[in-house]
Amino acid sequence: MARDLGKPAALRSADSIARWDDEADVVVVGYGGAGAAAAIAARAAGADVLLLERAGGGGGTTALSTGQIYLGGGTPIQTACGFEDSPEAMCAYLLASCGPSADEAKIRLFAAESVAHFHWLVAQGVPFKASYYGEGSYTPTDDCLSYSGSELAWPYRELARPAPRGHTVQQAGIEAGGMLMRALTAATERSGARIRTDTLCETLVVDGARRVAGVVARVDGREACYRARGGVVLAAGGFINNKAMVERYAPLLRKCRFRAGCDGDDGRGIRMGMAAGGAAIRMDVGCIVLPFTVPKQLVKGILVNRRGARFIAEDLYQTVVGEAALLRENGEVFLIADNAVFARPFPETEIAAVEETVADLERTLAFPDGSLQQTMAFYNAHAARGEDPLFRKHPDNLVPLVHPPFAALDYTTAKALYTVFTLGGLHTTPEGVVLNPDGDPVSGLYAAGRTTSGLAAQGYSSGLSIADATFFGRRAGRAAAARARHSVGG
Amino acid sequence: MARDLGKPAALRSADSIARWDDEADVVVVGYGGAGAAAAIAARAAGADVLLLERAGGGGGTTALSTGQIYLGGGTPIQTACGFEDSPEAMCAYLLASCGPSADEAKIRLFAAESVAHFHWLVAQGVPFKASYYGEGSYTPTDDCLSYSGSELAWPYRELARPAPRGHTVQQAGIEAGGMLMRALTAATERSGARIRTDTLCETLVVDGARRVAGVVARVDGREACYRARGGVVLAAGGFINNKAMVERYAPLLRKCRFRAGCDGDDGRGIRMGMAAGGAAIRMDVGCIVLPFTVPKQLVKGILVNRRGARFIAEDLYQTVVGEAALLRENGEVFLIADNAVFARPFPETEIAAVEETVADLERTLAFPDGSLQQTMAFYNAHAARGEDPLFRKHPDNLVPLVHPPFAALDYTTAKALYTVFTLGGLHTTPEGVVLNPDGDPVSGLYAAGRTTSGLAAQGYSSGLSIADATFFGRRAGRAAAARARHSVGG
Repeated sequence: MARDLGKPAALRSADSIARWDDEADVVVVGYGGAGAAAAIAARAAGADVLLLERAGGGGGTTALSTGQIYLGGGTPIQTACGFEDSPEAMCAYLLASCGPSADEAKIRLFAAESVAHFHWLVAQGVPFKASYYGEGSYTPTDDCLSYSGSELAWPYRELARPAPRGHTVQQAGIEAGGMLMRALTAATERSGARIRTDTLCETLVVDGARRVAGVVARVDGREACYRARGGVVLAAGGFINNKAMVERYAPLLRKCRFRAGCDGDDGRGIRMGMAAGGAAIRMDVGCIVLPFTVPKQLVKGILVNRRGARFIAEDLYQTVVGEAALLRENGEVFLIADNAVFARPFPETEIAAVEETVADLERTLAFPDGSLQQTMAFYNAHAARGEDPLFRKHPDNLVPLVHPPFAALDYTTAKALYTVFTLGGLHTTPEGVVLNPDGDPVSGLYAAGRTTSGLAAQGYSSGLSIADATFFGRRAGRAAAARARHSVGG
Repeated sequence: MARDLGKPAALRSADSIARWDDEADVVVVGYGGAGAAAAIAARAAGADVLLLERAGGGGGTTALSTGQIYLGGGTPIQTACGFEDSPEAMCAYLLASCGPSADEAKIRLFAAESVAHFHWLVAQGVPFKASYYGEGSYTPTDDCLSYSGSELAWPYRELARPAPRGHTVQQAGIEAGGMLMRALTAATERSGARIRTDTLCETLVVDGARRVAGVVARVDGREACYRARGGVVLAAGGFINNKAMVERYAPLLRKCRFRAGCDGDDGRGIRMGMAAGGAAIRMDVGCIVLPFTVPKQLVKGILVNRRGARFIAEDLYQTVVGEAALLRENGEVFLIADNAVFARPFPETEIAAVEETVADLERTLAFPDGSLQQTMAFYNAHAARGEDPLFRKHPDNLVPLVHPPFAALDYTTAKALYTVFTLGGLHTTPEGVVLNPDGDPVSGLYAAGRTTSGLAAQGYSSGLSIADATFFGRRAGRAAAARARHSVGG
């Protein structure tokens, strides 16, 4: 029977470690997309790498994802599918959509090197098919390219030439995330990184000068200590599965029914980094997906709150809509469709009401008298002219909603499948160096993926999290490897 | 000439301190309302107290405030003015208004002991006049009691019996905050606390077991070290005057023109606590005052966004309105008044447009065609019946806006005086013990006031910050004193 080690310490001092069980130039904590990328890159930089994972194998939340990666600037897939893109257009879109206070340095670097990152992924064995899927959140076929953000919606379509940048890994069905991680774990194994699974890292170790020197883990009921000569890379996921942390930092996210995460997303990586002096920033923000756009014709309906009023352009991306619905409307919204626009939504969604007249629909939904009638009269009058003066929905998506019966799909948090994961985390440089509250480096500590605050603090486009995790994971691994070389040399 | 000590370390180890310049049972950092209360309480508990302040004297941001303190449950002032209140009603209001994820333990304790805290303040020499001022944000006379929150607004008026709980310290003009701090600094001096001003605390000192053992300060260009036998109480204000921190944690607050804070509100106290292992929570939230309610008749107007739509009940408290205007409407709102309701606002506010018809007003404001006309037609029709089906503004505040000319007051962040301070900070127990990211105590570290996350994370009522600072400052001082006794005894 496993010995009970009790609650782990927040931080350990090196002189409390009687014996190191193993050591390496770079110790990577977590074997999802970020950890795999960090390990591969650190190995490529010549470092001896130890990769520690709490589960029985690699994968993490990346493996559970839809395998979509936000890439652009002119990837071979974009070109093959006839789309023109540039790093500048990609950068302009991300700066405009990820604000306020998006990490400009990270966005500029990522946009500039996105094509190179595509080639790196391919070199690791990640398959992409040169095919365009179209607008939509993910690809249930084995197709690749789609619009996975708000590029075609106002104001973005005026700020940056739109291009589809969602690159889904080639794999039929919704197993593309699994395929991505099969490729990355195979590449990690080939790289020569030493991998230890069933190793739950709980505490960082710092030396007398407060440099991170290693990590203490729980293995088979006993404590195991791993020394890092160059640095520790925390790539241990976010905190959506830690109820106390979500309530403390981002209480509204608790209302979302579907938490996109694995057991590892309990915030342990973030907490380990904080205990070693790292600052966690933008802890209030999350990716909030409101899946109401399949089939696509549903965006021709209108989203209204409990006052019967529209609050957003329905053709903004489902994460932007989800964020507004949850944070501004408290997750109390409905999609109104007429008989011409209505279609059975995927995922299945409850119908709150169906009525022959808008007045009856309004009454059944207990909206204030006249509120929805007024909203629809205003919307329909302008839609008939191809205009949406309130929110500038694209003319292609504007059609008067006048054919009875009228339906209201229930997109309240109580009924609909709001999907959420956290976007806040450790503050890092583009090189993955963890910063303290004063903005200074925590020596020897690196982080990547959802353990960090990444490219998007809001206005999320699908695929940004895996893009961020793998792109900045590589840089963190490389930086930790460089520090190991320097330490050995010096 | 002062020696340049460079950037302070994030944290110091006790063995790096060659010599302690002074020591005490309890070291309090910061001499505003929270620090004074902590020092007085620690002295009353028998501790030797050293109070360190960066400025030339006590006061802090409390001294710059309007001197309003949120107190209730049946204070002598409430009773003398004929208002019935109970700890239960006060608690119900605070739990409902400060959510989501308000600190229930702190709220329950504060409501239960609020009358006792009133008597403590009086015992320190803080003067209150037994007079009712009425609704309004502060008292420019020397009167005391007023509604300083949303107690009379829906839904609060239905959830808890309303009572005015804003207690302004007796002092004519807007100097009541100064009067409060004159009383508290005099009481602190009488208490026998040893006070050192011009002492800028920058770094906490921890011993080998990671217990907080003291603080390093900058005094006249040299380093000074102060040992704390029992504990350090961080009462050093918030971070509204640290631009980098605001952008990192709460970027929208940057849009507010008036930052309610002193130089000390640079987040140093929070950063010191984080470096020692404390967790800072709810760092995204602030108190956002939109002063549009003086004279009171202006709430009979309607607030609209750039789409010409209402977004809130105008008789909710100005902080609740400010929060919604900034966070939900991006600080782009206007108050529409007709000639009957219009009055010159205080503070002075730009008039964006005056027109004889609503249609012209709409056009001048560049609102979508028909949007404001529709909003006002709907509002007026219901107001004529004393109803506001959208937001349930109180019938007393409902009157059709039909008398030309019509004016729009400019309450955009670019033009209006949004006033802001931060509400996020170190996570503490009701005893003031700072908690780490795992929710465990940081040994020897206490905090109070805006260095902490306090009673209100949102839905702020005026006077809560000083109430929180003084009430929980007392508890933090007492707890640190108790730990000193325990340390000496053991």
